[in-house]
Amino acid sequence: MNPALATFGELLLRLHSGGDSRFLHTSGYIPYYAGAEANLCVLLARLGIPAQYVTRVPDNDLALAGIAQLRGHGVGVEKVLYGGRKLGLYFSETGNHIRPVQVIYDRAGSAFSELQPGMVDWESFLKDQTHFHWTGISPALSATVADVCAEAIDIARSRDLVISADLNYRSRLWQYGKHPNEVMPALLKHCHIAIADLDACNVYFGMTTDPSLPWTRRFEIAAQELQARFMPETHTLAMSFRVPENDRLHYTAALMSGGKAYFSRLKIALPQVKESIGTGDAFAGGLLYGTMTGLSPQETIDFATACGVLKQSVPGDWPLFSKSEIEAMVAQGINTRISR
Amino acid sequence: MNPALATFGELLLRLHSGGDSRFLHTSGYIPYYAGAEANLCVLLARLGIPAQYVTRVPDNDLALAGIAQLRGHGVGVEKVLYGGRKLGLYFSETGNHIRPVQVIYDRAGSAFSELQPGMVDWESFLKDQTHFHWTGISPALSATVADVCAEAIDIARSRDLVISADLNYRSRLWQYGKHPNEVMPALLKHCHIAIADLDACNVYFGMTTDPSLPWTRRFEIAAQELQARFMPETHTLAMSFRVPENDRLHYTAALMSGGKAYFSRLKIALPQVKESIGTGDAFAGGLLYGTMTGLSPQETIDFATACGVLKQSVPGDWPLFSKSEIEAMVAQGINTRISR
Amino acid sequence: MNPALATFGELLLRLHSGGDSRFLHTSGYIPYYAGAEANLCVLLARLGIPAQYVTRVPDNDLALAGIAQLRGHGVGVEKVLYGGRKLGLYFSETGNHIRPVQVIYDRAGSAFSELQPGMVDWESFLKDQTHFHWTGISPALSATVADVCAEAIDIARSRDLVISADLNYRSRLWQYGKHPNEVMPALLKHCHIAIADLDACNVYFGMTTDPSLPWTRRFEIAAQELQARFMPETHTLAMSFRVPENDRLHYTAALMSGGKAYFSRLKIALPQVKESIGTGDAFAGGLLYGTMTGLSPQETIDFATACGVLKQSVPGDWPLFSKSEIEAMVAQGINTRISR
Amino acid sequence: MNPALATFGELLLRLHSGGDSRFLHTSGYIPYYAGAEANLCVLLARLGIPAQYVTRVPDNDLALAGIAQLRGHGVGVEKVLYGGRKLGLYFSETGNHIRPVQVIYDRAGSAFSELQPGMVDWESFLKDQTHFHWTGISPALSATVADVCAEAIDIARSRDLVISADLNYRSRLWQYGKHPNEVMPALLKHCHIAIADLDACNVYFGMTTDPSLPWTRRFEIAAQELQARFMPETHTLAMSFRVPENDRLHYTAALMSGGKAYFSRLKIALPQVKESIGTGDAFAGGLLYGTMTGLSPQETIDFATACGVLKQSVPGDWPLFSKSEIEAMVAQGINTRISR
Amino acid sequence: MNPALATFGELLLRLHSGGDSRFLHTSGYIPYYAGAEANLCVLLARLGIPAQYVTRVPDNDLALAGIAQLRGHGVGVEKVLYGGRKLGLYFSETGNHIRPVQVIYDRAGSAFSELQPGMVDWESFLKDQTHFHWTGISPALSATVADVCAEAIDIARSRDLVISADLNYRSRLWQYGKHPNEVMPALLKHCHIAIADLDACNVYFGMTTDPSLPWTRRFEIAAQELQARFMPETHTLAMSFRVPENDRLHYTAALMSGGKAYFSRLKIALPQVKESIGTGDAFAGGLLYGTMTGLSPQETIDFATACGVLKQSVPGDWPLFSKSEIEAMVAQGINTRISR
Amino acid sequence: MNPALATFGELLLRLHSGGDSRFLHTSGYIPYYAGAEANLCVLLARLGIPAQYVTRVPDNDLALAGIAQLRGHGVGVEKVLYGGRKLGLYFSETGNHIRPVQVIYDRAGSAFSELQPGMVDWESFLKDQTHFHWTGISPALSATVADVCAEAIDIARSRDLVISADLNYRSRLWQYGKHPNEVMPALLKHCHIAIADLDACNVYFGMTTDPSLPWTRRFEIAAQELQARFMPETHTLAMSFRVPENDRLHYTAALMSGGKAYFSRLKIALPQVKESIGTGDAFAGGLLYGTMTGLSPQETIDFATACGVLKQSVPGDWPLFSKSEIEAMVAQGINTRISR
Repeated sequence: MNPALATFGELLLRLHSGGDSRFLHTSGYIPYYAGAEANLCVLLARLGIPAQYVTRVPDNDLALAGIAQLRGHGVGVEKVLYGGRKLGLYFSETGNHIRPVQVIYDRAGSAFSELQPGMVDWESFLKDQTHFHWTGISPALSATVADVCAEAIDIARSRDLVISADLNYRSRLWQYGKHPNEVMPALLKHCHIAIADLDACNVYFGMTTDPSLPWTRRFEIAAQELQARFMPETHTLAMSFRVPENDRLHYTAALMSGGKAYFSRLKIALPQVKESIGTGDAFAGGLLYGTMTGLSPQETIDFATACGVLKQSVPGDWPLFSKSEIEAMVAQGINTRISR
Repeated sequence: MNPALATFGELLLRLHSGGDSRFLHTSGYIPYYAGAEANLCVLLARLGIPAQYVTRVPDNDLALAGIAQLRGHGVGVEKVLYGGRKLGLYFSETGNHIRPVQVIYDRAGSAFSELQPGMVDWESFLKDQTHFHWTGISPALSATVADVCAEAIDIARSRDLVISADLNYRSRLWQYGKHPNEVMPALLKHCHIAIADLDACNVYFGMTTDPSLPWTRRFEIAAQELQARFMPETHTLAMSFRVPENDRLHYTAALMSGGKAYFSRLKIALPQVKESIGTGDAFAGGLLYGTMTGLSPQETIDFATACGVLKQSVPGDWPLFSKSEIEAMVAQGINTRISR
Repeated sequence: MNPALATFGELLLRLHSGGDSRFLHTSGYIPYYAGAEANLCVLLARLGIPAQYVTRVPDNDLALAGIAQLRGHGVGVEKVLYGGRKLGLYFSETGNHIRPVQVIYDRAGSAFSELQPGMVDWESFLKDQTHFHWTGISPALSATVADVCAEAIDIARSRDLVISADLNYRSRLWQYGKHPNEVMPALLKHCHIAIADLDACNVYFGMTTDPSLPWTRRFEIAAQELQARFMPETHTLAMSFRVPENDRLHYTAALMSGGKAYFSRLKIALPQVKESIGTGDAFAGGLLYGTMTGLSPQETIDFATACGVLKQSVPGDWPLFSKSEIEAMVAQGINTRISR
Repeated sequence: MNPALATFGELLLRLHSGGDSRFLHTSGYIPYYAGAEANLCVLLARLGIPAQYVTRVPDNDLALAGIAQLRGHGVGVEKVLYGGRKLGLYFSETGNHIRPVQVIYDRAGSAFSELQPGMVDWESFLKDQTHFHWTGISPALSATVADVCAEAIDIARSRDLVISADLNYRSRLWQYGKHPNEVMPALLKHCHIAIADLDACNVYFGMTTDPSLPWTRRFEIAAQELQARFMPETHTLAMSFRVPENDRLHYTAALMSGGKAYFSRLKIALPQVKESIGTGDAFAGGLLYGTMTGLSPQETIDFATACGVLKQSVPGDWPLFSKSEIEAMVAQGINTRISR
Repeated sequence: MNPALATFGELLLRLHSGGDSRFLHTSGYIPYYAGAEANLCVLLARLGIPAQYVTRVPDNDLALAGIAQLRGHGVGVEKVLYGGRKLGLYFSETGNHIRPVQVIYDRAGSAFSELQPGMVDWESFLKDQTHFHWTGISPALSATVADVCAEAIDIARSRDLVISADLNYRSRLWQYGKHPNEVMPALLKHCHIAIADLDACNVYFGMTTDPSLPWTRRFEIAAQELQARFMPETHTLAMSFRVPENDRLHYTAALMSGGKAYFSRLKIALPQVKESIGTGDAFAGGLLYGTMTGLSPQETIDFATACGVLKQSVPGDWPLFSKSEIEAMVAQGINTRISR
Repeated sequence: MNPALATFGELLLRLHSGGDSRFLHTSGYIPYYAGAEANLCVLLARLGIPAQYVTRVPDNDLALAGIAQLRGHGVGVEKVLYGGRKLGLYFSETGNHIRPVQVIYDRAGSAFSELQPGMVDWESFLKDQTHFHWTGISPALSATVADVCAEAIDIARSRDLVISADLNYRSRLWQYGKHPNEVMPALLKHCHIAIADLDACNVYFGMTTDPSLPWTRRFEIAAQELQARFMPETHTLAMSFRVPENDRLHYTAALMSGGKAYFSRLKIALPQVKESIGTGDAFAGGLLYGTMTGLSPQETIDFATACGVLKQSVPGDWPLFSKSEIEAMVAQGINTRISR
């Protein structure tokens, strides 16, 4: 059976204050459609992997414009549910080397966050799929969405799908009265592929690693502990890192597969980041691509790292770059020579 | 005591799709701060009448940018409450002579709509004020805001303020399980100055007028019935009209004062409207201005009509025109000659 | 068998000089994807009719961005051919009530204009379709594209598809050494549904009608002559008109069906046209929609006229309006009241 | 000797508030270079008449950008003087059918307004020229510029140039302590070609005409009086008019030549004016073009009127339209059909 | 008495060429309101310190828009004088790591530069204030403004206000025939708080320091000499520095207080500066904030340095950042991690 | 005889996707006129060297707008030929430190590429000129343009002009069936001044240099071999280099003159390049300027390097910087201090 991905998550409209302006004096907002899972679907669909996406949005043109973009990039949106009162939104303000990106969420009460168990026909949605992907953002939105996650995972398991999860901890969500460690461990227990990070490990599982150790060692320790104690079914586990070196942050990543650690051959200095949002989703998408198409672990982590790097050169949330650009990044690292 | 206005209502951020684009293909949203009552305050403050505004907004830069604009135009915002999860929003799409303006509200769950009785310190807010203004939009938002309206009206009455109300019926609001006719009559009973329209009269009070009558006659009948049956304390009651004449709509207005009808001397053809949103608020502001500064009924309705006309030439929701522009419109009607 | 449309034509990138600027001083071009047949597909797909589109574009991101937009609006683009050196372009400059829209074509040598017979697999493309639509623009591009039209029509006839054609005469094309009257009559002979206009009738067939007659009578005469002499298989033939009345142009249309003339109940004054480009394609799309879904001739011509009117309110070439907007236009004509 | 024009006036930078915004809330200004005489030069140079322009600007990039635009349109700028402290500026705000265009001048103390007699080498500048054109704006700027006008006129007379003047009264200038009627009569006495208007006639010469007369008659009376009493050398005298007819203003014009009045065959309704600034300069340029190239009086006034009409369709101050567009306007009036 | 600041200076409109364009080819100017003293007021008002501002501007909408922004940020503008002919302007062109920012002033003859002694009612303006702040820009504009500075300082002294001055030398001003060393020493003699720089010390007082010394030592020498010889009443004196280190400039600062030097704990590499204009004003504002609210000298210089750093991340002249952003910068230095 | 330059090449319209967007999601294209030879002419004309340009463009406003820009910058365009079907275009997408600039050419079939021998009147064009400049882009376009190059070089030689050539290899051109090494050697044989690069040497002449050598040595070897074997008449030969040093690329250059190598005193780190397009043309222009005005070889290569550096700070293709900026760069290297 050819690989085919099913994903589930919230479609957001991002309103980005243009021209480096702050919210306080901006004269315009650029609309970008977004969502961790949608971003990943766009990458996989553009790379030729069938990708189905289920979400819930209100039946208005603000939402339909986003659905049309997904369809345009080749993502399957036939099962999207229409209903509810509002589309999830977030406002963003460009950061720079002095100030961080500012984000104001406006997603409480969104059509997706009011999703209830039973609304999605999971049997139909997961039919003919080989992989199911979800992220830690969904259970952070509401108790009912957390329940829908559990429902999806159950049916995915019953259909023997490979389950992939991006731990994706968002401190500003989780407003419905549960601590993540009450919710996430049960959901992550049945995950085969995981994109993790040290913060989420700490919040979800109480895990810590010694900050004085090198990042490579911290990765190995954390990956082993995650697999040993919390995510026993995980066979593929990756993390990306921003490693300070020579006074600049470098983007790189690591993968644990079959008990063995693989470190990306790419370690890219990123002094001027165009767009830091969506980097993790592109990395996760690259990881899934490698896994689903049979790349070796080393090839997979290199491919995923290149996706994460390239995303940082593209404004907006969609990972708009091509397979040949990813492969060139894997092969040569950064090369800014004009081709003409 | 010099006239001084207190108002109460929701501050909104409008996100307007620029360049005549539809939601489906816009590449940018222009932010305009808005709200029927805020619009009116801006007009009065710019005309030199002290205007205090109370609303509730979240404590983030999206809201603070709007508060700063109000303060910049001279509106008193010292009593604004900070709290809640989101700022009320609406998205708009430019209309034209073929298609109407499209509006998508995103104000459910806003900081203002979750306002509760007791939150506003009305005694302090209404101290030193002579007039209190509210509109039919507030009770349409939630049961608790309707209660806050009642609370405010009670205290305004106890302090002998002149109460002014704009009936402002919005069919897409009123989502909380009450029909307007269960809520509005009690609130409007103690109104001294009213800006009404035939639709609202129908929805709130079940009143109808014969559409085959001339608009002037319909106004007289409706005004008399409103005063006689539903709003017995109203001494000043105005309506604006878009009257078809020679195949074009003309903007004009009428005022009932002391039992006598006054018709605006301005009847302006408006074939190309820049911005229809906010027209009614500017009209209401002009009416209050005339009333508060002792203009005669005829002067008042002419001034108010000129405000309504001028608003249609200004993008965004704020009524950004000057007293001299209003007076020139009253004196000469439309005159597009360049002054240089 | 449910109705399903196959179309064929050139996808263009339009570069529109923004902000009412002329080419001589513009500081930016807005990209709109376009093409008479693509425009029609977008309308039908958005109205729920399966619409397949075949074209030929180079394999670069300028073209892929347009294909993604078509896919996003629901048009089937699986059979698009990739190859050739350049995408067809046109530059446009906004017109106004003083100056006409200016168009500069840059489509010579485009991937589509170099299409050769045999390149499109028509059997596969027309399989499972019920209707085939083409326009007079394609045979105007090159001798080989004219041959491809003939090829397509042959196979469509052999498969018993309903053939629809928009006569669409473009005087600036036809640069390859043939006069339209050497090419078009043979292609139009087997057309069942036609969108015509008096200019094209004159150029293609040498037909004239007396300009002193009323437009309704000119329509009847022309339609009868077209069917009697040149397009014998045509059962449905429509034309749109811009009729001067009271010093203003009014947009309306007529349909000949079963030998009987139907005149649109809509006759809309259009003093301020946002965007005149694409009006005819929207009209043609509305006509096909009515025909394919079994509307009566009167309903069909009203629906088509409403589509033509609404297109004039939307910037760009895609007909971005909804079925409910079309139906409201049919029912009420123009109504610019804000719904809120 | 082939016709060749020398002009003299202030080059201005106009800062135009974009997007229909008012000064109070604009987020950007579009720079347009401008100046009544520069506008006229651009028209003539684009129509193929050699046009030399002298002005004085500071030696900075704000000014040089404007000089480069003039040179780009073919205007001779070799004699421009560099010096002084600031470029003349004006800020503008789009008008519409409700509000007039707003202009804020910032030209006091400009490099041009500080021009002194003796600075321009008139003998060299006027060598090889046949016509000299100036406008009433220059003497309105400062006493020294008024003196420079007189200096230029003297030398033009001594070289037997045809002298043309646009009366161009600007009420907001004339801040240096003289009333126009103390300055203008002496300057206009030696004018051969004049573009006048009834306001300027009143201010400069104290002339009035009976407003109850038809505009054609008022023109005849005013033209005769001007020639008889104030401008005895004038052989060609034109005025443009905005004539109300059927509730709309129509743009038209008249010319007195050889004692005979000619009325433009164009009378164009202008309900939606894109840009009213520069209309008079384009009209004046058309008049000079006709006179300099030997058109008949009727052809000249038609040509000039068409220039005035077309300017109203072009944003900015330069008259960016072509001879073929002017001739089409003369021949057919307004025709908004797309050519494609 | 709670601290309360009075300031005095020119309000400017900056017209900034957008999109990295040069003056020679820009297609738009972004308006930012500005002025060294206004910038400082905005920072203090936003930090909660009452800040009154007096300036003189013409009574037009260009100026009123700037006054409204000041009022919006909480600055007291009740005493602003209206009159004069023009608002001070400056044009700017973005610099980058290759070319410096270009500035073209257009402020000669501005309403403020024509301010005369006696126009400002200093007694009334300085009543209820604790601090008075002025900068070296004002005396550079005209002899009369220099006299107004002296007038203000006299009254501030008579009212026992703390006087603060930013030396702010601008080489392109000082066009009225005086050398700064003829004017500034007398004005600075009575200054309690000073923001200085080595260039200004040289121009105003003829002081030099040995450039081969480390910047810390140069600061100490200069500060001691300034206090000892020229500004005997100064108890708090600060300078900011751009120190080259590892091939990059680092922004840092030093403070002399009570005869002791304090060096900022922040030394921030600034390879990509968004906006260098306004850095010094933000630094000065931070210094005043620390002094007025009782921070220790070390806290004060750290706070001021953080303000200077943050300003470099904000387009435009206003210091639009919050107290919590300043405190985070003091605590952690640069941290560009997204909070979400 | 004063130096005077004649150049020949294709004028292009570049459509640049604004705001860092990719082709896939851009909402606008900025038009920049371009062309290697036109860029060089603009630099020389702005520096005061007479520069004549011949090209062939269609007679439409897209082309005329570009010609007007050239004329505006002082380039002689009197001999430009009008005809043909389309203007050469290229689309570009901003690169960054992660991704290279993307270019999509659309110049096949352009008016220039269809130029035939005999069309340009070279005798007339080269009359009164001292230098003739061409680049390797022209012969890459079509066989007939290569022939026109040969024709031009013959006549330039017969008139004893100094011939200058920029080798400028473009791998995406050369689509007409010839390898560059079949065409370029004969054309370059008679070149006196050359701007070369190691890639072009390899493609045109099969020359290689050992990459393990330092760049200075590679330059010397290549320059000697070029002169000895392929371009015997060349007396001045320059190359620019991007040299990695301390982990960053540095821009610098070298010149061989009279058998001696000169290395630029400028070696500028360029971590953030605004605009890499046009760098080589600015460098070539600087080289010609130095040669034509009698600078010493060292001065020439420093001047040329400064031009190449400054171009990287200017958006678009024209080298919009001044002689004083070049001289400041030569004297001080990079200095980003604001002058005010």
